[in-house]
Amino acid sequence: MLVVLKKSVTESEIDHIRERVEALGFRAHLSRGEVRTVIGLVGDHRGLAKEALLSLQGVEEVHAVTKPYKQVSREWREADTIVEISGGIRFGGPEVPIIAGPCAVESDEQIFGIADQLRAMGASLLRGGAFKPRTSPYSWQGLGEEGLKMLARAREATGLAIVTEALDPDGVDLVAEYADVLQIGARNMQNYPLLRRAGKCGKPVLLKRGMSATINELLLAAEYLLAEGNDDVILCERGVRSFDNHTRNLLDLTAVPVVKALSHLPIIADPSHGTGVRDKVIPMARASVAAGADGLMVEVHPNPPSALSDGAQSLYPEQFSDLMEQIRVIATAIGRSVKGPA
Amino acid sequence: MLVVLKKSVTESEIDHIRERVEALGFRAHLSRGEVRTVIGLVGDHRGLAKEALLSLQGVEEVHAVTKPYKQVSREWREADTIVEISGGIRFGGPEVPIIAGPCAVESDEQIFGIADQLRAMGASLLRGGAFKPRTSPYSWQGLGEEGLKMLARAREATGLAIVTEALDPDGVDLVAEYADVLQIGARNMQNYPLLRRAGKCGKPVLLKRGMSATINELLLAAEYLLAEGNDDVILCERGVRSFDNHTRNLLDLTAVPVVKALSHLPIIADPSHGTGVRDKVIPMARASVAAGADGLMVEVHPNPPSALSDGAQSLYPEQFSDLMEQIRVIATAIGRSVKGPA
Amino acid sequence: MLVVLKKSVTESEIDHIRERVEALGFRAHLSRGEVRTVIGLVGDHRGLAKEALLSLQGVEEVHAVTKPYKQVSREWREADTIVEISGGIRFGGPEVPIIAGPCAVESDEQIFGIADQLRAMGASLLRGGAFKPRTSPYSWQGLGEEGLKMLARAREATGLAIVTEALDPDGVDLVAEYADVLQIGARNMQNYPLLRRAGKCGKPVLLKRGMSATINELLLAAEYLLAEGNDDVILCERGVRSFDNHTRNLLDLTAVPVVKALSHLPIIADPSHGTGVRDKVIPMARASVAAGADGLMVEVHPNPPSALSDGAQSLYPEQFSDLMEQIRVIATAIGRSVKGPA
Amino acid sequence: MLVVLKKSVTESEIDHIRERVEALGFRAHLSRGEVRTVIGLVGDHRGLAKEALLSLQGVEEVHAVTKPYKQVSREWREADTIVEISGGIRFGGPEVPIIAGPCAVESDEQIFGIADQLRAMGASLLRGGAFKPRTSPYSWQGLGEEGLKMLARAREATGLAIVTEALDPDGVDLVAEYADVLQIGARNMQNYPLLRRAGKCGKPVLLKRGMSATINELLLAAEYLLAEGNDDVILCERGVRSFDNHTRNLLDLTAVPVVKALSHLPIIADPSHGTGVRDKVIPMARASVAAGADGLMVEVHPNPPSALSDGAQSLYPEQFSDLMEQIRVIATAIGRSVKGPA
Repeated sequence: MLVVLKKSVTESEIDHIRERVEALGFRAHLSRGEVRTVIGLVGDHRGLAKEALLSLQGVEEVHAVTKPYKQVSREWREADTIVEISGGIRFGGPEVPIIAGPCAVESDEQIFGIADQLRAMGASLLRGGAFKPRTSPYSWQGLGEEGLKMLARAREATGLAIVTEALDPDGVDLVAEYADVLQIGARNMQNYPLLRRAGKCGKPVLLKRGMSATINELLLAAEYLLAEGNDDVILCERGVRSFDNHTRNLLDLTAVPVVKALSHLPIIADPSHGTGVRDKVIPMARASVAAGADGLMVEVHPNPPSALSDGAQSLYPEQFSDLMEQIRVIATAIGRSVKGPA
Repeated sequence: MLVVLKKSVTESEIDHIRERVEALGFRAHLSRGEVRTVIGLVGDHRGLAKEALLSLQGVEEVHAVTKPYKQVSREWREADTIVEISGGIRFGGPEVPIIAGPCAVESDEQIFGIADQLRAMGASLLRGGAFKPRTSPYSWQGLGEEGLKMLARAREATGLAIVTEALDPDGVDLVAEYADVLQIGARNMQNYPLLRRAGKCGKPVLLKRGMSATINELLLAAEYLLAEGNDDVILCERGVRSFDNHTRNLLDLTAVPVVKALSHLPIIADPSHGTGVRDKVIPMARASVAAGADGLMVEVHPNPPSALSDGAQSLYPEQFSDLMEQIRVIATAIGRSVKGPA
Repeated sequence: MLVVLKKSVTESEIDHIRERVEALGFRAHLSRGEVRTVIGLVGDHRGLAKEALLSLQGVEEVHAVTKPYKQVSREWREADTIVEISGGIRFGGPEVPIIAGPCAVESDEQIFGIADQLRAMGASLLRGGAFKPRTSPYSWQGLGEEGLKMLARAREATGLAIVTEALDPDGVDLVAEYADVLQIGARNMQNYPLLRRAGKCGKPVLLKRGMSATINELLLAAEYLLAEGNDDVILCERGVRSFDNHTRNLLDLTAVPVVKALSHLPIIADPSHGTGVRDKVIPMARASVAAGADGLMVEVHPNPPSALSDGAQSLYPEQFSDLMEQIRVIATAIGRSVKGPA
Repeated sequence: MLVVLKKSVTESEIDHIRERVEALGFRAHLSRGEVRTVIGLVGDHRGLAKEALLSLQGVEEVHAVTKPYKQVSREWREADTIVEISGGIRFGGPEVPIIAGPCAVESDEQIFGIADQLRAMGASLLRGGAFKPRTSPYSWQGLGEEGLKMLARAREATGLAIVTEALDPDGVDLVAEYADVLQIGARNMQNYPLLRRAGKCGKPVLLKRGMSATINELLLAAEYLLAEGNDDVILCERGVRSFDNHTRNLLDLTAVPVVKALSHLPIIADPSHGTGVRDKVIPMARASVAAGADGLMVEVHPNPPSALSDGAQSLYPEQFSDLMEQIRVIATAIGRSVKGPA
């Protein structure tokens, strides 16, 4: 960190700041400029909040010059992490795998029917919520473990890998029994006990960006997973809070190249939650691939108007099919490919 | 809900929408205007997402005209809810109780020392984190149960009631053993398994507004607690995400009168997290009381520069003492009083 | 508008509201539901603020069911507006014209050199600021009319049409003498005297979205231009204010399909201001085309590190050339083409 | 500025950066740390955008350690600026002057009637728009110069000083003929030609914060006024854009102490635009005074439901009278006074 001192700082304040810096376990490196004096901290200060220094007399500003995260950074590992899922699906390489399916698992009939179509159209993974985090306690909350069983049966029938969400630490173990990829939702991005448990679950984790999480906060949430030993982490941009109400969220696609520059982890996009409106999902799914996303997560329902949740943002199967055609072309423009299941 | 139809809607689309509305369990009330035709839904649609209707052919817009929450609303209960804590402390009445203390419990010495001073200065409750949700996995995470025991001992010594946070469902039961008020932090406002458990814990709950939660989302999170049978809920405004970096968050004090108009629940303010900078805490604490907050939560540390967390936003004890003088006068301007412990 | 009444509304309040509605020039259409009573306003209420009704006793909510804008809407004109610029360039049709050039005109040498290269690489229009709106009064403010003359000479030499900004009503006339397209910048999106003058300037106008403008506000700003008789309006998404500081703005590409559904006007994207960082401009330019933008505006400088403004977001010419290759492929995926000058 | 170099920076890159820094007119002060090498720039870099350095090879981050503004800063002038208006009204001292009046001047009768009452209740200045910036071109745009004349007559009759808005450079001269304080509205905060003209108009200027302006941007906008020689500048917090729609804007009261720490200029608050809802104006007006605002601007209308604009946020005269009672008490809590006209 760089501690910029006030113009009016006194020598005794400088001494006190240096002592404090050293008491915190760092070496203090003083640099007297013509305009300002600056103290650089030498040592590993990832666990140090800059507020600890800001509150000292004579300090004007504190700038973090090393990143607060560690194992998720490009400096820790330069090469792209490739997260491999059963069936040869790879996130983070030149292929762009597609995760598709309904918002929630509703019945065997629903999930089998749609899984079959999605596989034929080129999706590689099947999504479907069994435990649903709902804003209202009076909304339908999902089928629970019964839903997980339906997903597992759909996988057997189609070969599609399964992505589904866990809501609490105990749920992690249950979901990990059934799922190929465990999802942590946006509302839980900073649910640290959940992250710690997911870091030990033995399955790849899809971590969605929180509603108004900064990129640093997203990467620090991922750091919790890596710190527990789980390197198979896929990040997901899914829209942030906005001031305009034409869409449910504001899909921040620039997060894709920003994250890829800072971190070796793959990052995908979810234009369904990112927009919340069916006819905006299609252009934004295309834009996601063009921006360099390492995958897509798209809600598709056999009959959106009858969906028990998120019907308005679910594509009709035929729309998904058209979208697949378009993104196959777009991927080639940047040397990538949208590859379906073998 | 009011379903506004497109200008171009056809009779067969209208028929289909009516059927769908009725299939969802509502009666459809059609009103043909000169410009637009509107269908009103009759029935209880608190669990119905407007997206379910938006996706139908011929629908232009859907407006919710009843509130999505129920038990937290003024329509459910007109009179202010008064949350009583042991020792005659009341949130929601004419008194304005003050919660003060360090961000985290660090030692018996620290917490005893500060508790004593705070009591003398007029605080009614003692705050202090034992389980700390930290953005970085490498930051200090609190003393855990040992911290809870220190808080309990400080209560015995001073008579101050204890407010402290639980991070996961299992932690709720542990925290509820020791605390007088269980806190749900901003990052966990939509952690539904945690809310459900807190709804059953038998202790009053202090629910902090999420980082970018709308007022409706805050009230719906509280609804989870009331739906489980816990009516003793205190809401807390603690700042929302902003685009300016002079402060840690943007304290949205207007949330106080907005919530009080919509809900019977008390709402307090936390200017410490709301600003993140010591010399902004004082004016904003005053402003909170002037805006009508039903209480304050303020971080005070015996020696802020040595605090293990949040030092930069912690007041010095003498600052807190001055603040108490000021808010006592301000409270009288609106017929309220800042009353300390008996 | 729909005026939703309070549950507790009295008959005399209803009478008063009806009188007031009629005094404002509308007919009131009353609909008594089981839960709520609703009054629909019949008449043209584009100039009516909903606040005028919200303040009446007995009113709970007011919902606008017709759009506040008129001539810019799809309901006013169903077919896409095609804005034609000299030289056969068309915005709003299947082609995707590219506007490129430096942030600011710095010299004849600079602007001639880059214009030549951009033309060869496929750009159709040349951008370059002569009047620069700068956040600081101490920053360089552009070459003024001398810069306009340089642009005009560059047009003569290369055939590229010219896009440049006017900052005040008097400047509009001056800029319109030289430019093919007059630009209104983001900071001036709600500068109404400027918009009125631009509406009468006789040249197509490129209107950039304000820093935190809603889509409705953007369309209402455009309405000022159309209301003065200028139908040749090109909208431009250029990023909105965000809470993350890895980029200068948050490029809201979903605005592209949102605007195209609501309005017949073409909308382009400016990924240079939208991200502010050179290596993010390229993926977001690709994403813009994939999202359906009707054109791109990209900053390219012959030597970005020496640029007098916005060097960090300016592409090197060779990067622009590579980008053109990629977006040519992407355009084909949606049946469009990136066509250079004849 | 501090230029933090990449870990991987080479010696030749360092040389190049130093050359570039010197070419820009600064001295480069190199400091090699163990983790990072940092180059400090010595010289006045207020007009230098950090992007100019960010784009150089080998540069990781650039931190501004001196403020981008100059004359508005506390470092330029330590003592509070007191802006004196005719009649002994002072902004920036211990008194808290109150500006009140309707959103727009509608008639002699309206403005005389309300001015009289406001004066009796303790307001010191009369507000009222003659030129109204309206989001829609179809909304009523104000009475223009006729409105200015009405304001001037109301001043003669009551002695209240007049605050009213100018929308364009030419309008500045006209408004300055009639007004005691010239207002620059939120939408025009970065309208630089308007600011320059206002900087030369010879009257105090009330500068409102833009819809999503950072504090630095607000101060830089004020710097335009001071740079033209006008030191009589009053800043005004009036709410920023938010994601919640219960209020029109999010009143950011923390801006008051933040600005007062950075700048010597007075800052007042406008809770009417800051909330947009009458019953929220009152608590937030109180909170503004408690937060340390140097004045208030409040909309009051003789008959809000019939107001031609902003009726929903206008107080009834009797509400304003009650508010005055409350803020008189609150002001005493911090050693200030709400003083009416002599």
